[in-house]
Amino acid sequence: MSEKLIGSCIFGQSGGPTSVINASAYGVIRAALDAEEITKVYGAAHGIQGVLNDQLYVMDEEDPEELRYLLHTPSSELGSCRYKMADPEKDDTDYKRILEIFKKYNVRYFFYNGGNDSMDTCNKISRYMASVNYECRVMGVPKTIDNDLFGTDHCPGFSSAAKYIATSCMEINKDARVYDNGMIVIVEIMGRHAGWLAASAALATAYGSGPDLIYLPECDFDMDKFLADVDALYEKNGKVFVAVSEGIHYADGSFVSEAKTSATDGFGHAQLGGLAAMLAEVVKNHTGAKVRGIELSLLQRCGAHLASGRDVEEACNAGKIAVEKAIAGSTGYMVAFEREINDGAYRCNYTLLPLSSVANYEKKVPMEWINADQNGLNVDFINYVLPLIQGEVDIPKVDGLPRYAKLKKVLA
Amino acid sequence: MSEKLIGSCIFGQSGGPTSVINASAYGVIRAALDAEEITKVYGAAHGIQGVLNDQLYVMDEEDPEELRYLLHTPSSELGSCRYKMADPEKDDTDYKRILEIFKKYNVRYFFYNGGNDSMDTCNKISRYMASVNYECRVMGVPKTIDNDLFGTDHCPGFSSAAKYIATSCMEINKDARVYDNGMIVIVEIMGRHAGWLAASAALATAYGSGPDLIYLPECDFDMDKFLADVDALYEKNGKVFVAVSEGIHYADGSFVSEAKTSATDGFGHAQLGGLAAMLAEVVKNHTGAKVRGIELSLLQRCGAHLASGRDVEEACNAGKIAVEKAIAGSTGYMVAFEREINDGAYRCNYTLLPLSSVANYEKKVPMEWINADQNGLNVDFINYVLPLIQGEVDIPKVDGLPRYAKLKKVLA
Repeated sequence: MSEKLIGSCIFGQSGGPTSVINASAYGVIRAALDAEEITKVYGAAHGIQGVLNDQLYVMDEEDPEELRYLLHTPSSELGSCRYKMADPEKDDTDYKRILEIFKKYNVRYFFYNGGNDSMDTCNKISRYMASVNYECRVMGVPKTIDNDLFGTDHCPGFSSAAKYIATSCMEINKDARVYDNGMIVIVEIMGRHAGWLAASAALATAYGSGPDLIYLPECDFDMDKFLADVDALYEKNGKVFVAVSEGIHYADGSFVSEAKTSATDGFGHAQLGGLAAMLAEVVKNHTGAKVRGIELSLLQRCGAHLASGRDVEEACNAGKIAVEKAIAGSTGYMVAFEREINDGAYRCNYTLLPLSSVANYEKKVPMEWINADQNGLNVDFINYVLPLIQGEVDIPKVDGLPRYAKLKKVLA
Repeated sequence: MSEKLIGSCIFGQSGGPTSVINASAYGVIRAALDAEEITKVYGAAHGIQGVLNDQLYVMDEEDPEELRYLLHTPSSELGSCRYKMADPEKDDTDYKRILEIFKKYNVRYFFYNGGNDSMDTCNKISRYMASVNYECRVMGVPKTIDNDLFGTDHCPGFSSAAKYIATSCMEINKDARVYDNGMIVIVEIMGRHAGWLAASAALATAYGSGPDLIYLPECDFDMDKFLADVDALYEKNGKVFVAVSEGIHYADGSFVSEAKTSATDGFGHAQLGGLAAMLAEVVKNHTGAKVRGIELSLLQRCGAHLASGRDVEEACNAGKIAVEKAIAGSTGYMVAFEREINDGAYRCNYTLLPLSSVANYEKKVPMEWINADQNGLNVDFINYVLPLIQGEVDIPKVDGLPRYAKLKKVLA
């Protein structure tokens, strides 16, 4: 046990929101409010930008009951950011400002909830504070629907998105097979470099109502092979259901969504997102079939009404454990998840991973979990993802609609 | 009470599927199996096409427990169709064939579940059977997410779609306001001629997390006024959330989704569905803001996991009552819903409406429920829709995923 460190704490949310990032917020805030070592709990408005701009909400002013609603409120309630910090060795302007704010509020604990970039931010702040001998314990709380963080079995946010994607694909599949004429559906799922989310559509297939074909960014995409895959199934069944990751790319690395072909003139957006519409057009021109492109878009990352109960619990615990470990003396770590299976029963152990080892490394779906034709997942992937989507949430409702947290957000 | 009519029955599903059309199927099938007057219960494969093609599934062969799963299985489990029948006075080919099949199986009851076109089909079959003196009681069971059937307070399927749309809009709104830079989101909702579904997004706004602007096909769309509406809010808040019905049209009647403007070259599809992407492009070019177009697509009509409990119950009752009333002697009617409010408590009364009065008439959102600026709904609409979305469903699950009905579908 290290020496007791007394002072206030700042908590921030960063990167793309998820269904459960506010559950981690609740874990951090509740534990920090309860800790006698922590004198005041600040929530940064829009992550590190709120620190730089001196925009801090006093969490001690919030009603405890209202804070509990964070467990089932999607998105980032304190606001998020995508601010990239410079290397402190090259440009320490931001770090000097952060130090100034930390001193102003006697901040001795900093908790940051986010993905790869956020862990990098965390790591840089941690190093800088050490270099100037300012005692502050810095802990990262993982978050990303992309599930691409290194060194953790999975990431809070992914499991709920996976449950949403699997359930929605089961429903879409039912709808897409209703007429006796031909029909092809192409669903576009998030994930620019790692295919964990699109792969989760395989759960729908494993449970009897899902895509026939799934394409991930882990493999090079081949348009001719894709069309041949679709042709074969369309000829056999008259119905084809395809799931694609937004990040599928050709062998030369260029995103399929960015490519301009004769069939896609006018659709070649630089921005990702129009992939389903573009592929639908290509497939329609190729087969003459009725084709519908569907983009799950923001829905898949904010569908808190269909969150995984286990995800909510783990996300909250990750925040709580970050606080407990920091108080006990840890700094420079991210909370990570370790899977333990005993007699078939899943258990999540919480470990600490040095921030320097996790930052800026992207974990992808193992090639051995992808089938030989590179258009589907095998049982090893199902075994990996299935425990994560277990548990139903009973979200608070008013008049049949979700009741979200309403924070006062009193500025410091 | 009419004379007892003994014979078999055929049940069919028609038109676009919904989250609860199988709940009506369960209502019909269960009541028909339980009725001593009905000797055999057939389900038509793909609606009236299954009758014409002599493709009938024997419902008596199904496991009763498995049939119960229909209550929470989205889409049309027996298959649907969009087959338009000729006027029997002009071309009676199909009707002669239907009569042949009815005689072959001694069909004395015909139940058809669908929207406007299906009630028209029902009406024509009813008239034809009377004209050839073949005794057969024909009853329509209403269904349509579009909520545009005449003479009924609302339609099974609409309430669940409304609940899905309102909840999803609440979640999207949370996600769309997370960064501190500008953001405009445009959500496209189904409804080609009537705006009931897009209007339901107003529930999200009424409960604190919904669209700022809603445009319905009940009003002529004016692109300049739309852009001015968006501009005003973007300038004020930096965030704008817009919901549009797929059927919005200009004063000359042309669909906005079909229009080609300089900003939308390449997006002018003849097919509806690309509206969100097209409007996003227009708004992006106009404002320079980050704009995201989201189409709720099939998700909104098959999201059984988020169905309205009241809708499931009413849909099932509608089917059950159609059978009971037919056995009691009624024919040529559609089951309709009548709203009764006593001391604030909602109650649904089931009535019968002559098929001839309901067929081919589209009910629209009353103009007096739309605000003066024609970009939102007022409290009268909220009061109308709120009771319909009440009640949560507890859908059967296996391993955290929906468990749907698995019918044997034994052919007659």
